[in-house]
Amino acid sequence: MTLFFRTVTVEEAVNAARSIAPLMEREDVPLTAASGRVLAQDIAADIDIPGFTRATMDGYALLSSDTVGASESLPAMLRRIGTVGMGTPAGMTASPGTCVYVPTGGAIPKGADGLAMVEVTESIGDDILVKRPVAVGENIMVRGEDFSRGSVVIENGTRLSARDIGALAAVGTTLVPVRKQPVVGIVSTGNELVPISRIPAGGQVRDINSYLVGAYLASLGCLPEYFGIVPDDQSSLKTILEQALKRCDAIVLSGGSSKDDRDMTADIIRDAGEVLVHGVSIAPGKPTIIGRARGKPVIGLPGHPASSLVVSLVIVRPLIAAMVGQREIRLPTRSAVLAENISSIKGREDYVRVRLSGGMAFPEFGKSGLTNTLIRSDGLARIPAGVEGLEEGDAVEVILW
Amino acid sequence: MTLFFRTVTVEEAVNAARSIAPLMEREDVPLTAASGRVLAQDIAADIDIPGFTRATMDGYALLSSDTVGASESLPAMLRRIGTVGMGTPAGMTASPGTCVYVPTGGAIPKGADGLAMVEVTESIGDDILVKRPVAVGENIMVRGEDFSRGSVVIENGTRLSARDIGALAAVGTTLVPVRKQPVVGIVSTGNELVPISRIPAGGQVRDINSYLVGAYLASLGCLPEYFGIVPDDQSSLKTILEQALKRCDAIVLSGGSSKDDRDMTADIIRDAGEVLVHGVSIAPGKPTIIGRARGKPVIGLPGHPASSLVVSLVIVRPLIAAMVGQREIRLPTRSAVLAENISSIKGREDYVRVRLSGGMAFPEFGKSGLTNTLIRSDGLARIPAGVEGLEEGDAVEVILW
Repeated sequence: MTLFFRTVTVEEAVNAARSIAPLMEREDVPLTAASGRVLAQDIAADIDIPGFTRATMDGYALLSSDTVGASESLPAMLRRIGTVGMGTPAGMTASPGTCVYVPTGGAIPKGADGLAMVEVTESIGDDILVKRPVAVGENIMVRGEDFSRGSVVIENGTRLSARDIGALAAVGTTLVPVRKQPVVGIVSTGNELVPISRIPAGGQVRDINSYLVGAYLASLGCLPEYFGIVPDDQSSLKTILEQALKRCDAIVLSGGSSKDDRDMTADIIRDAGEVLVHGVSIAPGKPTIIGRARGKPVIGLPGHPASSLVVSLVIVRPLIAAMVGQREIRLPTRSAVLAENISSIKGREDYVRVRLSGGMAFPEFGKSGLTNTLIRSDGLARIPAGVEGLEEGDAVEVILW
Repeated sequence: MTLFFRTVTVEEAVNAARSIAPLMEREDVPLTAASGRVLAQDIAADIDIPGFTRATMDGYALLSSDTVGASESLPAMLRRIGTVGMGTPAGMTASPGTCVYVPTGGAIPKGADGLAMVEVTESIGDDILVKRPVAVGENIMVRGEDFSRGSVVIENGTRLSARDIGALAAVGTTLVPVRKQPVVGIVSTGNELVPISRIPAGGQVRDINSYLVGAYLASLGCLPEYFGIVPDDQSSLKTILEQALKRCDAIVLSGGSSKDDRDMTADIIRDAGEVLVHGVSIAPGKPTIIGRARGKPVIGLPGHPASSLVVSLVIVRPLIAAMVGQREIRLPTRSAVLAENISSIKGREDYVRVRLSGGMAFPEFGKSGLTNTLIRSDGLARIPAGVEGLEEGDAVEVILW
């Protein structure tokens, strides 16, 4: 598939990027290191959870049928035949007319089918007065109610949250099969770039994109590898690209701010492999390049920091998700009402930085090179390709940074 | 301040936790390692950004006054006096009747106050026809427009996003002053607990909380240190607490599922220091303990996994934020319409797990020990203390996990 000769839609670009994503190998990591990683297989429960029927409150395990009609004025009187300790089997059986004290989390004895909270009871020696009827199953959790043995607890492709880690602990997953983290090579190109430690001279600018794109990729679970700044000449770029292809799983080049430079980047990627996309109907971010060399994705981002971040979010993020086999990617969004008109061009998908305040989205119209609009904004409002803009008062779904 | 003798409100508990937060020391880390860390001082721009007035498009820099009234039929004709290269000063001056080719990002020559995109021009040898009027400032970014030298770029207390990292690169912050990451000791207590590598015998359960709470704390930027499982006896718990106090900046104990065990935990914290809060009007999570020993916060979480996570989010999170001096904590939320009634008790703040689907929030009513309601849910709906519940159709703000 080569879409090179025309500007493609965002959807085509995302599909092209995903189509060339190599699936990372799996590795096993300790559970304490698995948070944020992507699971490489379904994990099933190795046991019923809970493994025994247990109390969810401190109280008296009993036969619910013994408490029918019990009230303050006419309590049910049951004989307490024992107490269950934590961490041990119940070791006794409740029969009609008896009850057993069980602390929260303790095992419910055989025969009992409900538990009266201690607050609705009164004890007179070994006699327990129960002042309310107890329903079947009340205040107890039945064996296997949380997970039954063999059932899938967490699905393949899940990016593991703290809650998922808790569930994996419950099913005894000490080593977690996950996808390896993609090592992504980051290269900034441009004769105007200087290292950030330098004071730029006339016409020079610091290399913002290496750090911006690197930090964003790290937030996606990648391991960025920084190759620094390359001047806009073919042999330097070729050399760095070859180095990076040896050491990385994917490569992100940014810059080439003029058309000639971008064309040179595309030529070099094509020489090393193929260019699938050169030009996407997205603003900012039109000059995006999607290519592949030695089976590895090579993405060319625009040089402006804001543009490179938008393209990272819209196109690189789904590529990385595909590389780690992530099942579902849901960007956090928030609904808001647009505070000003935004004009766009039909056929182009626009991503406008907006600041959120009191349910309203205020566009931060800024030249795409402005870093301050990036840090002042809360997210991006998407203007679909099918419309010519949005008007003040329109509802927008804002993708939160 | 000792609030020990009564159950306190969530707000009082959060204030108590924040009041005992020791501020972490600062350290300098490389910019590539600073993402997610909390800035320990304001960072100001060391230079004007951009450092020179530059082009935002490929085109001809010119005097806007030369293009007044220019049109397709009557273009302005200007003499091209040169081309600006990337990364070098403009090195020439535009005077009336002249223009200079500047690529995107290149320096605008002195004298010029606007730029005609190449798309609206035509060249005849060295003569350039400009077919549209150019406004003052059009397609150029003025020196210092992004940040002016000395102005604060990122404020003290900011948790650094990828965008912030980009801004720090722009102002040359190679080493970033941040707060040290809190080392938080994690202890699970309970005779019923077994390590997750074991198959629990009758009455036993695996230690879910160490991993759940540890992963959650790691997501807040802490370094969890795991002290394992401690049985419910005073001397074991005392010994572990002393060990943890030596090595950690804060300690989180979870468990003590019965009232007696929780009281013992509180007693041991009090022996080592003080207990500020024992009991919070929150569901789930009432038996929460907030204490301090050797100047370090010691938090007692409930034993149920879901309860311990809710209290971690509502009370431990603001404590950690205070420890790292984080300025603003905004939890991601989403508005939804409640799909079912939720009953609550006036005076108690309830956090109900909900699943989101099509703008509706479906409560996942589960016993608080159920792990599956945690992983099935998308977040928590908060029922404020002042109401007795919420009804189907009410608007709720859901805190996303």
